[in-house]
Amino acid sequence: MKAAVVGASGYGGAELIRLLIHHPHLKLNKMYSSRKDHVPISAEYPHLSDICDLELTKLDPDQIAEEADVVFLAVPSGASAKLVPELLKNDVKVVDLSGDLRLKNPEDYKNWYKKTPADSFYLEQAVYGLTEWNREAIKKAKLLSNPGCYPTATLLGLAPVVKEHWIDVQQIIVDAKSGVSGAGRGLSLNVHFAEMNENFRIYKVNAHQHIPEIEQQLELWNKASGPITFSTHLLPITRGIMATIYAPLAKEATSEQVYELYKETYKNERFVRVRPLGTFPSVKETAGSNFCDIGVAVDERTNRLTIVSVIDNLMKGAAGQAVQNANLMFGFDETSGLKGFPLYP
Amino acid sequence: MKAAVVGASGYGGAELIRLLIHHPHLKLNKMYSSRKDHVPISAEYPHLSDICDLELTKLDPDQIAEEADVVFLAVPSGASAKLVPELLKNDVKVVDLSGDLRLKNPEDYKNWYKKTPADSFYLEQAVYGLTEWNREAIKKAKLLSNPGCYPTATLLGLAPVVKEHWIDVQQIIVDAKSGVSGAGRGLSLNVHFAEMNENFRIYKVNAHQHIPEIEQQLELWNKASGPITFSTHLLPITRGIMATIYAPLAKEATSEQVYELYKETYKNERFVRVRPLGTFPSVKETAGSNFCDIGVAVDERTNRLTIVSVIDNLMKGAAGQAVQNANLMFGFDETSGLKGFPLYP
Amino acid sequence: MKAAVVGASGYGGAELIRLLIHHPHLKLNKMYSSRKDHVPISAEYPHLSDICDLELTKLDPDQIAEEADVVFLAVPSGASAKLVPELLKNDVKVVDLSGDLRLKNPEDYKNWYKKTPADSFYLEQAVYGLTEWNREAIKKAKLLSNPGCYPTATLLGLAPVVKEHWIDVQQIIVDAKSGVSGAGRGLSLNVHFAEMNENFRIYKVNAHQHIPEIEQQLELWNKASGPITFSTHLLPITRGIMATIYAPLAKEATSEQVYELYKETYKNERFVRVRPLGTFPSVKETAGSNFCDIGVAVDERTNRLTIVSVIDNLMKGAAGQAVQNANLMFGFDETSGLKGFPLYP
Amino acid sequence: MKAAVVGASGYGGAELIRLLIHHPHLKLNKMYSSRKDHVPISAEYPHLSDICDLELTKLDPDQIAEEADVVFLAVPSGASAKLVPELLKNDVKVVDLSGDLRLKNPEDYKNWYKKTPADSFYLEQAVYGLTEWNREAIKKAKLLSNPGCYPTATLLGLAPVVKEHWIDVQQIIVDAKSGVSGAGRGLSLNVHFAEMNENFRIYKVNAHQHIPEIEQQLELWNKASGPITFSTHLLPITRGIMATIYAPLAKEATSEQVYELYKETYKNERFVRVRPLGTFPSVKETAGSNFCDIGVAVDERTNRLTIVSVIDNLMKGAAGQAVQNANLMFGFDETSGLKGFPLYP
Repeated sequence: MKAAVVGASGYGGAELIRLLIHHPHLKLNKMYSSRKDHVPISAEYPHLSDICDLELTKLDPDQIAEEADVVFLAVPSGASAKLVPELLKNDVKVVDLSGDLRLKNPEDYKNWYKKTPADSFYLEQAVYGLTEWNREAIKKAKLLSNPGCYPTATLLGLAPVVKEHWIDVQQIIVDAKSGVSGAGRGLSLNVHFAEMNENFRIYKVNAHQHIPEIEQQLELWNKASGPITFSTHLLPITRGIMATIYAPLAKEATSEQVYELYKETYKNERFVRVRPLGTFPSVKETAGSNFCDIGVAVDERTNRLTIVSVIDNLMKGAAGQAVQNANLMFGFDETSGLKGFPLYP
Repeated sequence: MKAAVVGASGYGGAELIRLLIHHPHLKLNKMYSSRKDHVPISAEYPHLSDICDLELTKLDPDQIAEEADVVFLAVPSGASAKLVPELLKNDVKVVDLSGDLRLKNPEDYKNWYKKTPADSFYLEQAVYGLTEWNREAIKKAKLLSNPGCYPTATLLGLAPVVKEHWIDVQQIIVDAKSGVSGAGRGLSLNVHFAEMNENFRIYKVNAHQHIPEIEQQLELWNKASGPITFSTHLLPITRGIMATIYAPLAKEATSEQVYELYKETYKNERFVRVRPLGTFPSVKETAGSNFCDIGVAVDERTNRLTIVSVIDNLMKGAAGQAVQNANLMFGFDETSGLKGFPLYP
Repeated sequence: MKAAVVGASGYGGAELIRLLIHHPHLKLNKMYSSRKDHVPISAEYPHLSDICDLELTKLDPDQIAEEADVVFLAVPSGASAKLVPELLKNDVKVVDLSGDLRLKNPEDYKNWYKKTPADSFYLEQAVYGLTEWNREAIKKAKLLSNPGCYPTATLLGLAPVVKEHWIDVQQIIVDAKSGVSGAGRGLSLNVHFAEMNENFRIYKVNAHQHIPEIEQQLELWNKASGPITFSTHLLPITRGIMATIYAPLAKEATSEQVYELYKETYKNERFVRVRPLGTFPSVKETAGSNFCDIGVAVDERTNRLTIVSVIDNLMKGAAGQAVQNANLMFGFDETSGLKGFPLYP
Repeated sequence: MKAAVVGASGYGGAELIRLLIHHPHLKLNKMYSSRKDHVPISAEYPHLSDICDLELTKLDPDQIAEEADVVFLAVPSGASAKLVPELLKNDVKVVDLSGDLRLKNPEDYKNWYKKTPADSFYLEQAVYGLTEWNREAIKKAKLLSNPGCYPTATLLGLAPVVKEHWIDVQQIIVDAKSGVSGAGRGLSLNVHFAEMNENFRIYKVNAHQHIPEIEQQLELWNKASGPITFSTHLLPITRGIMATIYAPLAKEATSEQVYELYKETYKNERFVRVRPLGTFPSVKETAGSNFCDIGVAVDERTNRLTIVSVIDNLMKGAAGQAVQNANLMFGFDETSGLKGFPLYP
């Protein structure tokens, strides 16, 4: 099967390249970029010297059928909405890593992304690719909407207790921290080295576009779910997200019981690791891998649950989960191309 | 006035040295260390070469009256409880940066510090040095208990809305992040460079000893205060704390109104800077200075308030506030020796 | 005396502001920026909130005489050459931090900077401000050319053995490493956080514009000096330069003798610290201060000398030395406004 | 084939585990540690949770034949000298990552390592594993001495011009910089986070034990080789080495000619990448991979050659090259288990 990456010069694109070059069933066949044409990828990313001799070229959607069986869209929000119709009519499968197809309600997209939403036809058709929780639909998907990095960490962390009604879903607070690669390769003062180094900042307070994505899924799991408080911070590291999640318990439960719920829920999941009771993951322990690591604790003094969920934002938070979903869409083993372990230290 | 620093080889001690050398009214006269004797401070800290030619020596409490008018204790918890009685009987003023004298209830100390508490006589005598909120008592103090780094950021951030009953004080959640210098100069795998670099970790979940210190003060301000959820994380930076604080509003209020409350509350405070509405401080913006910077926002969707409070943990969170308190205790201008600005970038 | 900063929105400008606000004899009166007009400095640099309420405005050279007695030019190369004539005719003193006035030979400027050189009249008039080695001329200067960051570290490190003919001045190799703030506040992919973090790169190999500046001074000290090999690397830190300098000995000398030469040479210099034999400075030990720290060692196996010279690139490498020079130009104590110590850790 | 790792709790050991778990022909069968017994590796390294369920145990050399066909020694210098004889008599192949078997002359070991050298019998038997330059001997080796991290980067960088007599081998200067993982997992103040972060330091000036290792190989290539100047610095990053190498040309040559020599020399080497003329590798571009990346430039002004050689110190500088050598020793494809690409960004 042939794969193509659109937006290959960004960090999500580069990570897809890293994964696809070694994929046992998908062959990386083409890379497209809107900004570069006929530029070898190693000129953009010298770490790929002698590894990949493909060139970045301009995408022509009408030729896509000859060039790819599956297209990964690693493009900014706003671009996918335009590309998807053209690609689908050429009969390729599409895995969209942008935010354009995640929100079922176009009004939500308008409000949070401040852009024109995709046509409802595609919003409805798009299957949300939170792999562990939507596997059957993903297997049949032709158009897949890959989850955001923050929603992936947050939703995998919340799923067991939200679905089982163990917490008060009206009072969820998520304090999320991300490495800087999540902000992409585009230049900005916020991620200028001397501004971000030895620093830590909060951004988009109460306004991050991943908020409605999380809320939409929580409501599917538990109708009682209310609006969440969700804060995003930038860590002075390149890769990694930690979501520290707080909620009051809705029923009596000990740390042990919550831990057992998580162990049981994820016992067959290759990419979710529930950490031993009393321990918590740190972000570096998933770097370069597709794992989501989770730790939990109940505070008896406050009757609140703390959930710590950690991923590599470029892997399980983007390219890794995209490949995991493509594997399902094509009937491959779900872990194909994703066997790399965390790089530690 | 002569000043002495006990525990001068630690980071809190080093920061006190930096401040005291330039203090217009206090003269740094002696440095004590339990681990070093007759060692020039520049052998421990080469950055002090040609700046300070004092030696680290062993403390003899019976000689302290000749050597100092004020003693700063920058020692680990457990050590101050023993030293304070010996020092006080020699008639010096004491500023204690350890946690030994912060909790009025010895049982709390036993439970959270897992050590033997100081004698109640001293716990009662000790004045809690959250400068902006306890100035009159501090002025008369002979024994001052300097607040912890996390409590300083948290309490300055919470004070206006807790005292004015604008938030539900039963539902306060504090997600705090600290630079690594807060863990001190003692070696441990957690803060080994290759383990902490490019990493971010949560620690002491629901068990940090600063929790009862914060709760004790909140109750003084507002009797209804319940137990708080308070999480601590290590940032891969050297200096700086951010406390991201969440609480439901207890009355209707807009972001503007909350902002005005903070501006009004802190309008005469040199070391508290309330940031313009819509902006939030980042940790580096206080590095090396005694400022506490605060930003606030109300989320109308959830009716919750977010407060962001930032300090340099070694300054306002330790040595800086200690000097600020000593200034009050001796009747000096409160900003003496603390005029240094943030080092940025 | 009134001081003004041109280019106040860059890092060199911000560091000048930090120093001038506390200067006992110079009053920071105006800040100019070519890109901003009537913008409060705290909007550009929030760490200056409540500290400095000056605005960035456009410079009008014809009004400068009313606004300043001394003007610090913290502008990019190319800009100073145009500004200096206009300022000087208005009878202010000028301290130029750009590279425009450092090379006496306009051809060198053309070759290395690839720009149009300043008029020879000004090149001749400009006094090179390597303070420790040009003090008498600086005292009389009206137009001062502040040295580059790399040349400052390199020349202070080389001066004693070059002037005394202890090394073979035909075979000097300088391997220099700088923190990223030296690249300024302008955005570029090289200093994008995710590209520079956890990285280390060499740049401008054999082509850095500071090479002729160093060679020009070496020749003044020792006519036999040949071209140097000078490499520049970017460190993933914000502040600090280390120059590791290698040269064969031209006469027999032990480490002790070289050390004594350095101690003797710099014995009266407040801002040069020669480290005890067998020890070497690390870059953080000068952070935020105006010190240049030096360590030396002779390798008996190879008969080569290694000199390690460390500065804070924004201080002794830019704003700090500029203020040191201004102090001399006005007859102030040379250390005025420069008493701040390194911020460590 | 069964593989065992001795010293599995260190960073070199952890990297061997990462590589061996996925190795197509070697099965990681046992892990030994002198400090831990019956401790699951995931307790030491949580990033290996759910990946590897082996335990750290004590090594019993007499049982090794049943447990392994090849033993990787990732132990400190001094330990290998004692273990190797015991292992060899049990008829396993040994790949030693320590420095104990690298120096053929026991006096050199005594002088530079300040420890008792291994028995000459083993020093003679040990094959030096600089793979690209010693392949035939490695294929037949039963006892392999894996090169040091600095020597690997330095020697691969120098080989072409030293062997071909293009440079003056009496005047080689190597300025080397390493990430902190090279210092291992043992605690020390030098690599305490708050001391090393935002810092850069030189260490072991003229005294690093890798000096004689490099000189020994240079002399094998070119008898005229003299003692080198070799400096080592610590970078505030976890992984990566850059050696910036300087030498006068011994014959006329342009940058182009030197580049062509390198391209030709390494044209069949999978793990050496010569960068396009005018470009140079940065350390992150090899992170997590077994590549050594090289860039070269001749400076016509000085007639000196600059060589920049970059590796991941834990991969090509330790575990990666060890696996590469083991592949040769067993007749596997040399790249087996080493196909992972750099993790970027």
